Amino acid sequence: MPRVCKAHFFGIKLITCFSLLFKCFRRNQSLHGPSPVTTFGPKACMLQNPHAVMHIQDPASQRLTWNKPPKSVLVVKKIQDASLLQPFKELCVFLTEQKNMIVYVESKVLADTAIAGDESFGAVIQKFCTFREDLDDISNRVDFIICLGGDGTLLYASSLFQESVPPVMAFHLGSLGFLTPFKFDTYQSQVTQIIEGNTAIILRSRLRVRVVKKGIIMTNGDSEGSRKSMQYQVLNEVVVDRGPSSYLSNVDLFLDGHLITTVQGDGVIVSTPTGSTAYAVAAGASMIHPNVPAIMITPICPHSLSFRPIVVPAGVELKIMLSRDARNTAWVSFDGRKRQEICHGDSITITTSCFPVPSICFRDPVNDWFESLSQCLHWNVRKKQNYLCSEEEEF
Amino acid sequence: MPRVCKAHFFGIKLITCFSLLFKCFRRNQSLHGPSPVTTFGPKACMLQNPHAVMHIQDPASQRLTWNKPPKSVLVVKKIQDASLLQPFKELCVFLTEQKNMIVYVESKVLADTAIAGDESFGAVIQKFCTFREDLDDISNRVDFIICLGGDGTLLYASSLFQESVPPVMAFHLGSLGFLTPFKFDTYQSQVTQIIEGNTAIILRSRLRVRVVKKGIIMTNGDSEGSRKSMQYQVLNEVVVDRGPSSYLSNVDLFLDGHLITTVQGDGVIVSTPTGSTAYAVAAGASMIHPNVPAIMITPICPHSLSFRPIVVPAGVELKIMLSRDARNTAWVSFDGRKRQEICHGDSITITTSCFPVPSICFRDPVNDWFESLSQCLHWNVRKKQNYLCSEEEEF
Amino acid sequence: MPRVCKAHFFGIKLITCFSLLFKCFRRNQSLHGPSPVTTFGPKACMLQNPHAVMHIQDPASQRLTWNKPPKSVLVVKKIQDASLLQPFKELCVFLTEQKNMIVYVESKVLADTAIAGDESFGAVIQKFCTFREDLDDISNRVDFIICLGGDGTLLYASSLFQESVPPVMAFHLGSLGFLTPFKFDTYQSQVTQIIEGNTAIILRSRLRVRVVKKGIIMTNGDSEGSRKSMQYQVLNEVVVDRGPSSYLSNVDLFLDGHLITTVQGDGVIVSTPTGSTAYAVAAGASMIHPNVPAIMITPICPHSLSFRPIVVPAGVELKIMLSRDARNTAWVSFDGRKRQEICHGDSITITTSCFPVPSICFRDPVNDWFESLSQCLHWNVRKKQNYLCSEEEEF
Amino acid sequence: MPRVCKAHFFGIKLITCFSLLFKCFRRNQSLHGPSPVTTFGPKACMLQNPHAVMHIQDPASQRLTWNKPPKSVLVVKKIQDASLLQPFKELCVFLTEQKNMIVYVESKVLADTAIAGDESFGAVIQKFCTFREDLDDISNRVDFIICLGGDGTLLYASSLFQESVPPVMAFHLGSLGFLTPFKFDTYQSQVTQIIEGNTAIILRSRLRVRVVKKGIIMTNGDSEGSRKSMQYQVLNEVVVDRGPSSYLSNVDLFLDGHLITTVQGDGVIVSTPTGSTAYAVAAGASMIHPNVPAIMITPICPHSLSFRPIVVPAGVELKIMLSRDARNTAWVSFDGRKRQEICHGDSITITTSCFPVPSICFRDPVNDWFESLSQCLHWNVRKKQNYLCSEEEEF
Repeated sequence: MPRVCKAHFFGIKLITCFSLLFKCFRRNQSLHGPSPVTTFGPKACMLQNPHAVMHIQDPASQRLTWNKPPKSVLVVKKIQDASLLQPFKELCVFLTEQKNMIVYVESKVLADTAIAGDESFGAVIQKFCTFREDLDDISNRVDFIICLGGDGTLLYASSLFQESVPPVMAFHLGSLGFLTPFKFDTYQSQVTQIIEGNTAIILRSRLRVRVVKKGIIMTNGDSEGSRKSMQYQVLNEVVVDRGPSSYLSNVDLFLDGHLITTVQGDGVIVSTPTGSTAYAVAAGASMIHPNVPAIMITPICPHSLSFRPIVVPAGVELKIMLSRDARNTAWVSFDGRKRQEICHGDSITITTSCFPVPSICFRDPVNDWFESLSQCLHWNVRKKQNYLCSEEEEF
Repeated sequence: MPRVCKAHFFGIKLITCFSLLFKCFRRNQSLHGPSPVTTFGPKACMLQNPHAVMHIQDPASQRLTWNKPPKSVLVVKKIQDASLLQPFKELCVFLTEQKNMIVYVESKVLADTAIAGDESFGAVIQKFCTFREDLDDISNRVDFIICLGGDGTLLYASSLFQESVPPVMAFHLGSLGFLTPFKFDTYQSQVTQIIEGNTAIILRSRLRVRVVKKGIIMTNGDSEGSRKSMQYQVLNEVVVDRGPSSYLSNVDLFLDGHLITTVQGDGVIVSTPTGSTAYAVAAGASMIHPNVPAIMITPICPHSLSFRPIVVPAGVELKIMLSRDARNTAWVSFDGRKRQEICHGDSITITTSCFPVPSICFRDPVNDWFESLSQCLHWNVRKKQNYLCSEEEEF
Repeated sequence: MPRVCKAHFFGIKLITCFSLLFKCFRRNQSLHGPSPVTTFGPKACMLQNPHAVMHIQDPASQRLTWNKPPKSVLVVKKIQDASLLQPFKELCVFLTEQKNMIVYVESKVLADTAIAGDESFGAVIQKFCTFREDLDDISNRVDFIICLGGDGTLLYASSLFQESVPPVMAFHLGSLGFLTPFKFDTYQSQVTQIIEGNTAIILRSRLRVRVVKKGIIMTNGDSEGSRKSMQYQVLNEVVVDRGPSSYLSNVDLFLDGHLITTVQGDGVIVSTPTGSTAYAVAAGASMIHPNVPAIMITPICPHSLSFRPIVVPAGVELKIMLSRDARNTAWVSFDGRKRQEICHGDSITITTSCFPVPSICFRDPVNDWFESLSQCLHWNVRKKQNYLCSEEEEF
Repeated sequence: MPRVCKAHFFGIKLITCFSLLFKCFRRNQSLHGPSPVTTFGPKACMLQNPHAVMHIQDPASQRLTWNKPPKSVLVVKKIQDASLLQPFKELCVFLTEQKNMIVYVESKVLADTAIAGDESFGAVIQKFCTFREDLDDISNRVDFIICLGGDGTLLYASSLFQESVPPVMAFHLGSLGFLTPFKFDTYQSQVTQIIEGNTAIILRSRLRVRVVKKGIIMTNGDSEGSRKSMQYQVLNEVVVDRGPSSYLSNVDLFLDGHLITTVQGDGVIVSTPTGSTAYAVAAGASMIHPNVPAIMITPICPHSLSFRPIVVPAGVELKIMLSRDARNTAWVSFDGRKRQEICHGDSITITTSCFPVPSICFRDPVNDWFESLSQCLHWNVRKKQNYLCSEEEEF
């Protein structure tokens, strides 16, 4: 069967990652719909277009497996947080000595004297593979990732992999985060299970963002028409805002090449469903389950009262540019990092990335999500209406 | 219906209707993602599950065609609206005499003396096929539908087809509606083009709702454990509210069998993306493009300040029941119709229907949607910031 | 100058209640403003109008006192709540036997067999003065009121006094309410202190609502132009909504005789600042401290995205009527009670009442309010941003 | 300023500026309330406190008059806006030659060559009194102010007067602004009427803001405990935000000395009612009529979903400081100007100013306000629900 599947895919170009995401729950026969050959009424049907037929896997059944046993693991630790030292050491000893894994650690983590100076930990450190951000390429060396220390660690881990991302297991050390479902208490059994494979994963979509700076004078002096282009993979959101200015920002928003609207206000957030519960929700957006294949566009304090957030299908191409009559520049950041100025003529092009973050679930995509909503956002948490705080008692 | 469904699906392992919807725009190579065989990092991959591979068509390329030339058309006209009489007659003459179509019209439309009594129209009326709502089955007789008169006509047309819906072409006679993109001025060329086929369509997902009433005494007297079950196809939304009571409603919300939260407030709206711009947006929801495969859950005036609307993937199964400690019953309606009381023990089960409404686009799914947002909701329409209404002039 | 001023004020009738409310906090010299004789620039000033000068007391310094020692107290108890029985009995014994107060109790409270049948409580019951709602007038008999059992008890107590309201001391028995700041634990010392006088009070404004029903046929058969008028004192809000209909309501809103806007949606809430934290906040309103002399107008799920709540000065006269083209009637309720239908031609006239509810503070108006916001609404309660739930860690 | 203030207040114990504002509409007997001697129930009353009795004028009857005929007028013109040149010249000729007024103009306005170089205008320029912002004091020289060119001109005019503000007449040249109710077409008759006196005015409250910078090293080298303090009069709002940082800001909010809450998010807006329709409404606030004596506190994109805007009585003292654990500094601006950094230990103290802006009404405070809401914010402007855009048609 898988073989047949593969055969199918061979000659076919168009395969989308988000189809993979679009259905995540235990499904039964209740979700079905028109196949490519389905008719509507007695005679209408879809125009056949073989190039547009996609073969995707039901996201509900997405589980992690290994084509070879994993041998290397990247451990990402928030730096400058003393409470993480002990768990970090424990975990590394466990991975190295009990599981015989090759542990990758970023050099700056070892710069911490509490780690480098711990003699009892020296033997483990000896075995580490170290690397430096932006200098060393680890993209094809790491079989999976373990994060210690909050949602930020996962955003950081995501930024290390601009293409394919190894599966990520994220521990919270204190309270639950949106992206960190695992408790550290039982890390040994949990890690063991991951290594064995067959655990639920959710593919968190990322945005691929390309920034093109016009008029930047290149070092070779070739300023005429020179452009500089940078690309980012974003897990939560791209934020365009007014930066240090106290004036409104004024940017044009294009969708698949058409000018859709102009955003006048503090700025605009383009987020993944994962990012809908981060900055976007603070700006008034609805919360979108990470398995919905969509991109959310949320204005920040818009000048127009009727400018509600909108949700468009994954895969569209958005472009943001300063409006022609904008009086100030704007600023853009990517998951809160790499903040830079956007001037007239610069453009920010955003679409769904084909490199999602495979995030290992604690229970499953549904329960993990609702658990994080109530823990992190106090979503619909309120003391039950009772006779003491109700306006509706009967007399 | 399930039977028909299954028949359709036989040779095709798992094909979902919403996959068809999930990608609607002109796509280029920018949307790609992991195929079922994609790996993550060097060694991780998805566990193969042949039963979960789906073959879907790119919604971006969805166009209407005919496997035989269409011969019959249902004309839906809002009744009791004098301004529609002339367009209705003109259209019917055109369809009957120029296009040789068989025109279906609901009996009550002809009850209008302005139609029945118009002698010059008598010859056309003679050729009509008439039917009565809820009594005559036209489900397999109509090749396509033409609506005259506002979004409500399309909701009504949707309700006539509890299974497969023929393609719908909807005219607005005055200002644009969300569901009525066509202007009547050029109806002849537009209708001709539909009949020829090859026009853009958008599949608007519907919700399949099943209401189970506990404790209803059946006519045969068998009251013990008897239940009555009704089913509805909903294009905009299911609303559960406090009805005539001035007390809060109190309902439990289950997702795939798990209790997710309790809704305390005026009620809750479960809507399709199409319905997100109807009642849900008035209750504070974000606006979702109809091509996003999702279900939106929006509380109405919730008791809890942190109860934001949420968006979950199409295909999940929601269930709503009165909370155990609810002091009042609740009321449910379906696209604003069939309002009924919900008592303790009754349940409302909602999931994505496998029978979407194929709605013919005026231009394409993107432009039609943004056009309706600004026309119907004044979305982000505000006079441009200028020196007269700005708080930010420079001196 | 002051002398002239005072002279002006001598035989002047116009004194407003809300001036009394408008300033509630410990004031120092920081709040001052133009006196009636203040000039603007070198030569401009206010046109003198002795009839419009008001003498008010700084709300910041409002404290309760007694011109004679209080002798009678009304005890309001939520019925059908077993947990209140013991506190109620204890309190009544204390008031009757230790404080020699005359205790007023509503007849239906004594209908409860758990009270009437308690022999040990019989002697106290003997001393009760009882009354029946809507039948017996206690308006000038009660020196102060004690409420047991939630915000609803205070709304109910308010409704018993259509004119001057005695001071109210409200106990919560479980968790804090907006209107019930006192804990029962130390009721003896607290009640003693009230009786001695000199405690902080806040005057909670009420709305005076007059409903005029057109076309009601009077019992004397005089239907021609007959009208029926009812009047209510409202502490939280007047709600006009669509009632059992699933169609939008459509009402016109007039301010001081001018048509201000038409409300299309689920309805509209006209609330006091006290009521801003009840239904209005659920419908999206800001929260207004009870000492702000204002009336809040909040649409419920308005059809228009730009219809934000508005706050107008206390003392304006609002009128609500069905719009001429409304297809359905509307329904009105007053603090959730006395629900009734509003038909074409009926009117609801609302203004600030001159009979506020003097509500005894536990600490003071500021602290009591912020305490209730966080307890009842979880206002801005969220776990501190930390490394575990933050999107902004540094690496 | 304090000196003048105190002089005014000497014999009058407590007179508040906001009482003057609190009631603006045509009043009839409908607004009354307890006078300082009112009792509650048979025996309770307010503790007498003669020091806290205020004598105020009903804002409803506030009209402008002159104690001597006005002779000098400040004309404020937006610079660098060519469309204002002709109206500006016309107005100045009219004021100088027909009304014999002394016209004050800011030096930089005359720096425009289109003005300075216009020979036909030379004679008028000769008569101008010019001044330079921040250098020349015109506070007691100007009888009234005319603004040309948008809300910003009025904010700017307000900033020129840190104490008593002369009455302001503000023209919009294009579309209506919140603060600019007059059309220029009929300026001659309108200005004439102002000069004659007896026109409706609204006193727009301002905020007095004091910023204390800790640890700034004074020029005399006395750094130990040195503090620098600045004071501002603000007509719209004080904004504290994250500035160029992409991290959350984290500030503590104190009310009358008590810590009320911590604001975590993009920042916080403290606004007057006038400012409620500016930045605050974009951040989700309700809209407050300028005659309501209140201060509005609005979080910007708060981290906590339940952090709604709140409205507190005019005259309270607010203080904002960086939270102890804030990782970044914050930035503050005043009506969008004088932007500056706030570091640990700095404080921003805000209260109602005793120097409101007397703003001349076009019609009256109510009509002017509602007119500006619909013109500037499209408040509740939506095409009437009709059969074309309704979800509720009947069939």
